[in-house]
Amino acid sequence: MTEPSLSERVLSGDPRAVARAISLVEDESPSGARLVQRIFASTGRAYLIGVTGPPGAGKSTLVDRLTAQIRAGGETVGVVAVDPTSPFSGGAILGDRVRMQAHAGDAGVFIRSMATRGHLGGLARATSEVALILDAAGKDVVLIETVGVGQDEVDIVRTADISIVTIVPGAGDEVQALKAGIMEIADIFVVNKSDREGVDRTVMSIESLLSLQAFAAGEWRPPIIKAEATTGKGVPELLEAIGRFRRHTASSLGSRRRARAEWRLRELLAQRFLQFVERDVLEPGEFDRTLERIGARELDPYTAADGILQRAIRDAKAAE
Amino acid sequence: MTEPSLSERVLSGDPRAVARAISLVEDESPSGARLVQRIFASTGRAYLIGVTGPPGAGKSTLVDRLTAQIRAGGETVGVVAVDPTSPFSGGAILGDRVRMQAHAGDAGVFIRSMATRGHLGGLARATSEVALILDAAGKDVVLIETVGVGQDEVDIVRTADISIVTIVPGAGDEVQALKAGIMEIADIFVVNKSDREGVDRTVMSIESLLSLQAFAAGEWRPPIIKAEATTGKGVPELLEAIGRFRRHTASSLGSRRRARAEWRLRELLAQRFLQFVERDVLEPGEFDRTLERIGARELDPYTAADGILQRAIRDAKAAE
Repeated sequence: MTEPSLSERVLSGDPRAVARAISLVEDESPSGARLVQRIFASTGRAYLIGVTGPPGAGKSTLVDRLTAQIRAGGETVGVVAVDPTSPFSGGAILGDRVRMQAHAGDAGVFIRSMATRGHLGGLARATSEVALILDAAGKDVVLIETVGVGQDEVDIVRTADISIVTIVPGAGDEVQALKAGIMEIADIFVVNKSDREGVDRTVMSIESLLSLQAFAAGEWRPPIIKAEATTGKGVPELLEAIGRFRRHTASSLGSRRRARAEWRLRELLAQRFLQFVERDVLEPGEFDRTLERIGARELDPYTAADGILQRAIRDAKAAE
Repeated sequence: MTEPSLSERVLSGDPRAVARAISLVEDESPSGARLVQRIFASTGRAYLIGVTGPPGAGKSTLVDRLTAQIRAGGETVGVVAVDPTSPFSGGAILGDRVRMQAHAGDAGVFIRSMATRGHLGGLARATSEVALILDAAGKDVVLIETVGVGQDEVDIVRTADISIVTIVPGAGDEVQALKAGIMEIADIFVVNKSDREGVDRTVMSIESLLSLQAFAAGEWRPPIIKAEATTGKGVPELLEAIGRFRRHTASSLGSRRRARAEWRLRELLAQRFLQFVERDVLEPGEFDRTLERIGARELDPYTAADGILQRAIRDAKAAE
């Protein structure tokens, strides 16, 4: 009998194999790419829930409570926490240990934090691959938690099957947070820390923004759920709303997943092309010399990029 | 006599030409690219100041105050405010009008907001090109203001000549904000709204994070400046610190600008390659059919990307 491969062990749900596989895709190693190729046919079963919101909105606690509630219903859960921790703070690994304690001994839960890395959507790509691994490992639900309200976080959450936006009542900041591009991606709003003063004003400001939007008959209108993640208040209501959204959008789930596939394919094409250019098109040291010429304003980046592209594609038709 | 071209009018500092040029690069039009090619040799003179921080940190007011202070010293100022405003809110244009009023009639100030757009670093690329236009138009200082603490905002601010991180004292949120990947990019910290309670605790928490980092002799240690942007308190000290940093890093400015050129070249290469693939490599409808096959799990995205790349580069060496 031969040793089972890493992909076989991932597919059987072995947590050590899952942890190893995640490290491979985080490192952007070729073996990580091969692993995703092997498991890909076994994905698409998990329901992906994105949770985002500004720093300090209590997302981690909410995700922990949601995990416990989903487990109580008998489904297994994977958590990807995108945590752009400073390199000074010790960060992600320690955080995972603390968070895992709440679910210690429960083989139905797997939690992994991801630190900020790279450019050109590297973090969003790695996050989406970790979700694929957890999906292939048989997790029924994958929770993707991101801190921040930037484009990358929006990209991450937008590619989930449902997007939950978490807000806290506070001195005017919540309105800023709503402005910051996340209003349009919310399928459900959670006003967390609802024991704080100003909760009703926050709910009203979300309501008034929603009232500006025309919803067609039968179209999903994002509900606003008040929660206190620390006590668990509102978490059953949140899970119930997730279930309603899931049933409501069952017929359109395909188009959302198709958008995710499109984003992933474009991202991979760009990454692969840049690798090819650096390895096989440019002479040793040429990239550096090109940058020096750009720095000295002898060459502009558009002309440089077009020249490299022409050489890379050589016999193909000239790019516009 | 012939009419001067748009690029000539930008180089002469004509504000209407600058506004038109910015719209072209925002729309990612080919004429925008040609314009950047034409003006590129006349860039590299402006000093680029990035200002970031979490929502509600008072960045807009701070940038306005800084603009007035720089103008008082006789230098001209361009402002690019990256404002990922919700599509519902009217947003960027209205905001520009309100903000311009503070500098009404001052031809030495040009302010432009950019809304969130596209994927694959589209916002960061457009922002950096707007900075080039303002630079070519003769602005001595370009202020780049971003809201949020995401990867994209970090990318934008990282490519400026100096990065200012703005924090407000508040219920534990400021520590979260520090964690969120922006600690490492700060050249100067501003604790804004310093009339609020908790300002000294916030300063101390930044100090304690800084104390974990080893600074070599002669290395820049980010100062922490208390400010009240609404009253202008702390703004002269901030400008003085910017001046000190500028002198301190005068000899290493080249390497920072080189990193910016590298990021821009990679970004452009990826964008141009994807355009080429869609126009000249794939058959009509093929991209859609590929996505359908990925959705049905008949094909994985890695195999699909590698297949498209091979066809695009045909006679060149096979990509790894």
